[in-house]
Amino acid sequence: MDNIAHAQQQEMIVRISEIEIHPEHLDEYKAILKEEAEASVRLEEGVIAIFPMFQKDNPTQVRILEMYKDQVAYQSHLKTEHFLKYKTTTLHMVKSLKLVDMDALDLDTAVQIFNKMPANKKYQATPPAPKPFGAEAFQKSDKTFIRWMANGG
Amino acid sequence: MDNIAHAQQQEMIVRISEIEIHPEHLDEYKAILKEEAEASVRLEEGVIAIFPMFQKDNPTQVRILEMYKDQVAYQSHLKTEHFLKYKTTTLHMVKSLKLVDMDALDLDTAVQIFNKMPANKKYQATPPAPKPFGAEAFQKSDKTFIRWMANGG
Repeated sequence: MDNIAHAQQQEMIVRISEIEIHPEHLDEYKAILKEEAEASVRLEEGVIAIFPMFQKDNPTQVRILEMYKDQVAYQSHLKTEHFLKYKTTTLHMVKSLKLVDMDALDLDTAVQIFNKMPANKKYQATPPAPKPFGAEAFQKSDKTFIRWMANGG
Repeated sequence: MDNIAHAQQQEMIVRISEIEIHPEHLDEYKAILKEEAEASVRLEEGVIAIFPMFQKDNPTQVRILEMYKDQVAYQSHLKTEHFLKYKTTTLHMVKSLKLVDMDALDLDTAVQIFNKMPANKKYQATPPAPKPFGAEAFQKSDKTFIRWMANGG
């Protein structure tokens, strides 16, 4: 690893949060966490990953892979509206919480991860909703226009 | 989530392997695992992620996030040369091994993970090594050529 990559690896925060949720709150907790994780990855440049998982055999055991660009990015994340909302609304749902800091073995390879995720239809660009014409579009006219509309006009 | 994404999520294997390594073998184990993880992600289309991490406070505790496209991809991975080499050469280094199958909360968001990894110099294209001229390049000539070599000739 060259010096630049090494410095990056040292700055970056990699963590697995080990969380146990009270079973009666699990569904509600999942919905709130999903919203928080999505917003963090989408809105915060320094949040590289917040990837929540649940043990198949014991779904109240949550593991979240978290990666932040550096301490500054992490401290800034803790002050965001979406994080504070998550933290305050789920506090009573959490039975135990352990933040386990990790060293990644190989961040060079990590950049390729998830590039191979199956294409997901939800990532198609979404056009804006159709805008119906108002009354102003139907003024009287003494002309008729004919346009060739091939290739979508 | 639409039906296609749902089917993908159900097929995909997401796992955190929890491995403890005998401390006297840790460095050697890391080197072998790094090689195996890199080869798997690079060579196998169905290996979406093999992302090894070590607990900072207890580095013999290894956690590997593994993601395979489906059972077929996983079974094929188990038969590759690089996996078999890893498995046989590290068997005596492993104190304990637990494969914990996980459900991802939100694979839609996961596809964006790691896209934000800092650019890494190691991913620059590498030119081939310089090729010195052999004796054949220095034949006698009765002419002198002058060429303008601007813009690299």
